[in-house]
Amino acid sequence: MNTPSPLANIRVVLVETSHPGNLGAVARAMKVMGLADLVLVNPRCDIDAEARSRASGAVDVLEAARLCANLEQALAGAVLAAACTSRRRDLPHPAYTPRQAAPQLLEIAHSQPVALVFGSETCGLSNEQLMQCRWLLNIPSNPAYASLNLGAAVQVLAYELRCSLEDSTLALPEFELAPHEAEQALLVELEKTLIEIGFLNPANPKRLLPRLRRFFAKAGLEKEEVAIWRGVLSAMQGREKGRT
Amino acid sequence: MNTPSPLANIRVVLVETSHPGNLGAVARAMKVMGLADLVLVNPRCDIDAEARSRASGAVDVLEAARLCANLEQALAGAVLAAACTSRRRDLPHPAYTPRQAAPQLLEIAHSQPVALVFGSETCGLSNEQLMQCRWLLNIPSNPAYASLNLGAAVQVLAYELRCSLEDSTLALPEFELAPHEAEQALLVELEKTLIEIGFLNPANPKRLLPRLRRFFAKAGLEKEEVAIWRGVLSAMQGREKGRT
Repeated sequence: MNTPSPLANIRVVLVETSHPGNLGAVARAMKVMGLADLVLVNPRCDIDAEARSRASGAVDVLEAARLCANLEQALAGAVLAAACTSRRRDLPHPAYTPRQAAPQLLEIAHSQPVALVFGSETCGLSNEQLMQCRWLLNIPSNPAYASLNLGAAVQVLAYELRCSLEDSTLALPEFELAPHEAEQALLVELEKTLIEIGFLNPANPKRLLPRLRRFFAKAGLEKEEVAIWRGVLSAMQGREKGRT
Repeated sequence: MNTPSPLANIRVVLVETSHPGNLGAVARAMKVMGLADLVLVNPRCDIDAEARSRASGAVDVLEAARLCANLEQALAGAVLAAACTSRRRDLPHPAYTPRQAAPQLLEIAHSQPVALVFGSETCGLSNEQLMQCRWLLNIPSNPAYASLNLGAAVQVLAYELRCSLEDSTLALPEFELAPHEAEQALLVELEKTLIEIGFLNPANPKRLLPRLRRFFAKAGLEKEEVAIWRGVLSAMQGREKGRT
């Protein structure tokens, strides 16, 4: 039996892409490094003749791309979403260079899906979209002109993953990470619980939720931990209900 | 006094590029990583509106590109030319991955110009053009589809150089390499000498010259060594002349 390449578990998610040429360039950048799973979130352009032309021999990757209405849907099943961004944030999630991130992404991808998320050419990713991702990826660049083309950014990430693949031996993951939707649902439940117990004032939330999300992002939530946290939240709610 | 970045000594040489969009993509890939010296050898297209559009904020790099009639001219003054190629050769020059090559390229570029050479989209580089380069660079890729776009290939190389720059401290070169034209002139003189002394039969040269060129390529000819070899060749010629 052939061991499938972990690259098959790397999903490239493009959010609101506006230039068809970039769709093609991304497909080619992926295939040339051995990636194939492309997801388009609410694209602002069609897969047209220019997209096919730029895809060159990777039209198959382009044609097989899945369409999603939102990022949530695109990340379903992925245990780790890493957002490629050049912007600095008030409350940064764990941020890595592609070189730092690639071996870890690949190790997880040996057994579970991982997503790389790229924003639109003009606006990048919204803070809300970034909050759905556990890691930030910053590609080193010229501080005086850091505007990487979308296809070029995907090329750099895919290249780093391929290099890591060629360096690595088959690693067995030590833990099973929680799928994206389980993590997000837990965080929503946590918010609800914090409001219920009066710790969080929805009229004046301050920076509490982003800080908590960051904490979970750094931790890398595992499947078994979801059950634990669910138990904790139930207990918190029950105790409050018991009190009132 | 500011120390100039070694990236200023990295020259990108595009040979017979046929798509204007790629010219623009290359300019952008360069600038985003801090490179600026672009040389176009006999381009098969103009710097047109598409090229400018793809260059985006790197139109300055595109406009400043120098035009050369041949590769020889484009490599003048460079002490090391590295050719990016995916083809395997009968007599390979020293071949490196971008990751292996970047620290060495950068170390040399602290004091002397280095050239990265990229062939045309359809034909790559001819064997004659490759022979003018001392190193081959092979970007790791999917064996089933290794067709990197030209702009993407430049992006990967430029990215590796930037990563190496950020990793490195300012290194002082231990030696001064010979400029390209001095190396090439020496190799021509060597050939002439070998014919004169009857070692090389121009009617039946076999693989002798490529093997010698490879030997010099591996050695990395230094300035002082040019003088030494010149002396050796003079001596060889003189002795022969003395004999006849």
